[in-house]
Amino acid sequence: MTRKNFGMTTVVDGAGRLVGVFTDGDLRRLHLAGEPGGEVRASQLATRAPKLIEANELAAKALDVMETFQITSLVVVDGERRPVALIRMHDILRAKIV
Amino acid sequence: MTRKNFGMTTVVDGAGRLVGVFTDGDLRRLHLAGEPGGEVRASQLATRAPKLIEANELAAKALDVMETFQITSLVVVDGERRPVALIRMHDILRAKIV
Repeated sequence: MTRKNFGMTTVVDGAGRLVGVFTDGDLRRLHLAGEPGGEVRASQLATRAPKLIEANELAAKALDVMETFQITSLVVVDGERRPVALIRMHDILRAKIV
Repeated sequence: MTRKNFGMTTVVDGAGRLVGVFTDGDLRRLHLAGEPGGEVRASQLATRAPKLIEANELAAKALDVMETFQITSLVVVDGERRPVALIRMHDILRAKIV
């Protein structure tokens, strides 16, 4: 999360398929709950059913999902639900798609 | 930060003027540095020179600042640099200003 400066990361299963995301907000809530996180596994913490979009969907749809859920980035997955990218509102606006 | 669900908060001086912001990302970096934060004051942690905009500026300018700095929200201040609101990319897009 820190190295890529995204404020979030994906959690995948053994086959590389997305099972959840973990965000800075999750870390904050964990901190408030008094959990140092030392022995907790990523899969236990990740937000299940994270917002995602398939790579062949339109960018306009990605923006629609972001607005619906009031989030600013989305995981892009391939046909087997493996993360291939992260798309941010900034990326969409910069491309002048909307 | 948790109650308002913004992932950030402002830090003000005794006169209510903005001196910095503190974000989920700052909390994460603090955590990585091994600082539990128990005895640290907000003013020591806050990002100085936070990105802000005056209330009478155009929303389009707010979006421009967000794109320039690759951030998704901005503190709105009055003429005396007191925070009056937070503006998010979502707010601007919803208003169909851009």
